Amino acid sequence: MSGAIRIAIAGYGNLGRGVEAAVGKNPDMSLVGIFTRRSPQDVVPLQPGTPVFGIDALDGRDGDIDVLILCGGSKDDLPVQGPAFAARFNTVDSFDTHARIPEYFDAVDAQARAGGRTALIACGWDPGLFSINRVFGEALLPDGATYTFWGRGLSQGHSDAVRRVPGVAGGVQYTIPSEEAIARVRGGARPELSVRERHVRECYVVLAQDADAEQVRQAIVSMPHYFDQYDTTVHFISAEELARDHGAMPHGGFVIRSGNTSADQAQVIEYGLALGSNPQFTASVLVAYARAVHRMGLAGQAGAKTVFDVPPGWLSPKSAAELRRELL
Amino acid sequence: MSGAIRIAIAGYGNLGRGVEAAVGKNPDMSLVGIFTRRSPQDVVPLQPGTPVFGIDALDGRDGDIDVLILCGGSKDDLPVQGPAFAARFNTVDSFDTHARIPEYFDAVDAQARAGGRTALIACGWDPGLFSINRVFGEALLPDGATYTFWGRGLSQGHSDAVRRVPGVAGGVQYTIPSEEAIARVRGGARPELSVRERHVRECYVVLAQDADAEQVRQAIVSMPHYFDQYDTTVHFISAEELARDHGAMPHGGFVIRSGNTSADQAQVIEYGLALGSNPQFTASVLVAYARAVHRMGLAGQAGAKTVFDVPPGWLSPKSAAELRRELL
Repeated sequence: MSGAIRIAIAGYGNLGRGVEAAVGKNPDMSLVGIFTRRSPQDVVPLQPGTPVFGIDALDGRDGDIDVLILCGGSKDDLPVQGPAFAARFNTVDSFDTHARIPEYFDAVDAQARAGGRTALIACGWDPGLFSINRVFGEALLPDGATYTFWGRGLSQGHSDAVRRVPGVAGGVQYTIPSEEAIARVRGGARPELSVRERHVRECYVVLAQDADAEQVRQAIVSMPHYFDQYDTTVHFISAEELARDHGAMPHGGFVIRSGNTSADQAQVIEYGLALGSNPQFTASVLVAYARAVHRMGLAGQAGAKTVFDVPPGWLSPKSAAELRRELL
Repeated sequence: MSGAIRIAIAGYGNLGRGVEAAVGKNPDMSLVGIFTRRSPQDVVPLQPGTPVFGIDALDGRDGDIDVLILCGGSKDDLPVQGPAFAARFNTVDSFDTHARIPEYFDAVDAQARAGGRTALIACGWDPGLFSINRVFGEALLPDGATYTFWGRGLSQGHSDAVRRVPGVAGGVQYTIPSEEAIARVRGGARPELSVRERHVRECYVVLAQDADAEQVRQAIVSMPHYFDQYDTTVHFISAEELARDHGAMPHGGFVIRSGNTSADQAQVIEYGLALGSNPQFTASVLVAYARAVHRMGLAGQAGAKTVFDVPPGWLSPKSAAELRRELL
């Protein structure tokens, strides 16, 4: 498509694959290619026609990439890649280590300003869409309380922790918001909720040969930080069941703001996501924001940005007049 | 508070009263006063200290009002007041005649540009917050369908229609979204829903003396446009019950986007409001957006604007760095 927004992908795991799929759903975008640290011949794109390059092939490509979507991890990849690429490209990333966002923002901001580029950090659904709803909630109902619940969702970190327990041959962990806690919050009561009251954890575990089920269960439910503060249920299943029933990556959750506009009037705002695939949805969010980043770049808004800086209309392929007519 | 954003209210009905209450919940704002077309001595503000002026007293006050919130109606007041005040003040209004938004926007835009002012139109929850979620839904899940449900809510227009039926001494009408329809949409099925399938209507009616209940019921449920396309239930109650149980103005609803990021992965985004008082919540939205309008004015963004043009962070009293640290 002539005039399409030219997207490139840096890093090709679940998130990168999701971005490839999402670009295909947006007719105003085209995909320049996938840039990987692996050998390009080892990467099989979803679409046979998608070009795959080594990551170094990004050198000199800044003239034909409008937005580079960074699909690496927050722990090791983005702290290095984020600032480095922001000096040369408009970028979008999903940096999600909440506590380190300020320092990451500053590092990316310095490079993006120096290069005259727009770099949107910490995009996705949390941080991202959930964050926007936390800001809206506070601003619209200043006399109130905000609750974030996650799940039902597969937690990668907790699944890894379960799999490291001796006697575990395989397994996954789901975080599940407490129905009772959600009902209390929806009721407008502004309850104080302990960690244990907010979420429960559910594990599906395949035992290693000769492992003792009760011993494994105890090791999981008493694991510090990961499980000891929660009510955790452990289900033992077969390797076949694990492969058949637990291969998807569902996630989601709720941001609920409960507040009062006067002593006798309670108001509740609720934002919820029910995601069949966490990485595919996160990728869709990154791609929509890439459109906004392209426009912010054209408008000369250099530097690091977050979802808080992006007018909602800039996410849409429609013109401002179309949006007012069709969706306002 | 020194440096507070100075808000003024034009029009003092339910919405104006809500704005007065909402300004009191925002410590970074101060209320200049209420400006009314009635005799100022006939207006009793919520707070005894709130100054009340005639509407003409706005003349020459543009130097000490940062944002004027227009609390008149969309039918007769705003088409005149919106453009006129936008020439002299930064304004926020809740114009909600969806079909006439484009022409209203143009009229306000011309005056606001001429006066170098920022005028946010069609703010509130629908149009407003719901509109934002319709834009997000389309942009994030381009392969999908959007559903807006309203209620459970008191409908002013339909209540008026009920009260005009011969034999009706008093009454109210509630719009109620169909639980079954919502469940189908949440399930990701993207159903085609008829008007009748989306909402039901419930009326609480006080009969006039000697009126025939069945005749009144028939007149209501068969009323063209208002009721004939819906399943409507009419409850007959006493005047005492009407006064006791139906004096509040609850409302709310849902915007649900159901879409696919790939053939086998469905994703559902849901935004919901459960409002104890529709006018008080709408007022809270106007007041939060007044903060953003003040900032847009300071940034030189003259002209008519909508919620689509406002970065979420601009609604908050917190700085961008605080928002990134605390809420991202």
